[in-house]
Amino acid sequence: MAVVISSESNEKVKNLRKLYHKRQRKKEGKFILEGYRIIDEAFKARAEIESIFMTPEFASGEEGRDIIGRINNPEAVNLLEDKLLKKISDTYTPQGIIAVVREVNYNPEDMFREAQIILVLDRIQDPGNMGTIIRTAVAAGADGIISLKGCVDIYNLKVLRSTMGAIFNIPVLHMDLAEFKEVIIEKGRDFEVVGTGLSGNRYHYEPTYSKPVMLIIGNEACGVRDDLLKLSDYIVKIPIIGRIDSLNVAVATGIILYRIVEEKNLANG
Amino acid sequence: MAVVISSESNEKVKNLRKLYHKRQRKKEGKFILEGYRIIDEAFKARAEIESIFMTPEFASGEEGRDIIGRINNPEAVNLLEDKLLKKISDTYTPQGIIAVVREVNYNPEDMFREAQIILVLDRIQDPGNMGTIIRTAVAAGADGIISLKGCVDIYNLKVLRSTMGAIFNIPVLHMDLAEFKEVIIEKGRDFEVVGTGLSGNRYHYEPTYSKPVMLIIGNEACGVRDDLLKLSDYIVKIPIIGRIDSLNVAVATGIILYRIVEEKNLANG
Repeated sequence: MAVVISSESNEKVKNLRKLYHKRQRKKEGKFILEGYRIIDEAFKARAEIESIFMTPEFASGEEGRDIIGRINNPEAVNLLEDKLLKKISDTYTPQGIIAVVREVNYNPEDMFREAQIILVLDRIQDPGNMGTIIRTAVAAGADGIISLKGCVDIYNLKVLRSTMGAIFNIPVLHMDLAEFKEVIIEKGRDFEVVGTGLSGNRYHYEPTYSKPVMLIIGNEACGVRDDLLKLSDYIVKIPIIGRIDSLNVAVATGIILYRIVEEKNLANG
Repeated sequence: MAVVISSESNEKVKNLRKLYHKRQRKKEGKFILEGYRIIDEAFKARAEIESIFMTPEFASGEEGRDIIGRINNPEAVNLLEDKLLKKISDTYTPQGIIAVVREVNYNPEDMFREAQIILVLDRIQDPGNMGTIIRTAVAAGADGIISLKGCVDIYNLKVLRSTMGAIFNIPVLHMDLAEFKEVIIEKGRDFEVVGTGLSGNRYHYEPTYSKPVMLIIGNEACGVRDDLLKLSDYIVKIPIIGRIDSLNVAVATGIILYRIVEEKNLANG
């Protein structure tokens, strides 16, 4: 660990940089975290941290010593010249530390078993919205998220930051539309599939949500696609009282999820 | 209007630039909008648009001709060299048009009269959150917002963009803590003052919100300050079921506001 890497052609550095591309992340089943706060959350959630890169300055500070003390394999810690870390980093003001984390492969069977709330996301585009939706789903005690093909990558750094660490505390499955349709056919009888959108004919507070719920939330501009609305048992809408077209998608998700929490009395049991 | 302003020392340009500072905006009671979309919203809401600056290119396009057709006083339209408008603008990719709008002076008496929901904001810091909260308040049919001293300026361009035009459709009052306390003493018997925070001993869905409500929402990190919690008739909290510390403040605002909408049956009445 005493050697400070300064060259862009170092193999470890080259591999690290590749992970800033979605395709490579997917191929390797790994993703990147930047900054102490979210890496601390990853440790707390027992995420599988494969390697860590930090500047000598960061390593010698309190947060650096804390991280070094928590990693099992000392070989996994690499020191990088400040200038090089800045060049690699995605943020304008990098915080001196980057971690490579192994993605967890969640199993649909485990996610669905005894689940009360599954959140299904259709073409969510904005990383900040995506992160806030994941944070909200964890707060509301959702059992899992299905991110359909067309959503922003959940391992995008902006998404990860907006989750405030929640990403480590909820299973996420990735599916395309065909796979999701199969899930509904197989699991359909156990779940109420609830679409959302202005075409809904019930307000979000009218159903009793007595069966386990699969709640579908759609794109910021165009909502849930028709194919998915057709698969829904019913469609709910949030009443818009004042002069505005719509709610922010993360706010809308929170409003509906918490109405389900209330009906299911999840806060007390 | 045929003259294209190219000099930074032009008086109109100098005055426009001053309005990019909060202090000057407050002094003059004016604020700035950038981009067609939000200026279009301002026109629709009959905001008092004092002057408009656009590039010759923007003026000759469809959106430019639309704006020029809608402004009553042709003298109010100024053409600015592209390079100069870029220099003045707050955004990385300015959209060719800037408008100066006169702030509406709302009257507390009018806001409180027959109001069912007043939203009180305590030290909201993030412009995106502030804008989304305003958008959510309009959607939920709130009758007005009280922005306490210490909140980010609602006429900050990032706030205005995040409101998606909602800023023109709800009265906003600015008060310091002392002024707000006076309001509560005067108006207290007509309103239920509802604090929010983890110290609450009732979930947000437990009260019946039968009286008009003044709902207080607090800072992203530290919530509603104690002084305000002490003034509250009661404090509600949103249950956090999963492993996360808190909800995003705009999401939390939406969850509570819509629970009030439901209790008051505002969607149907």
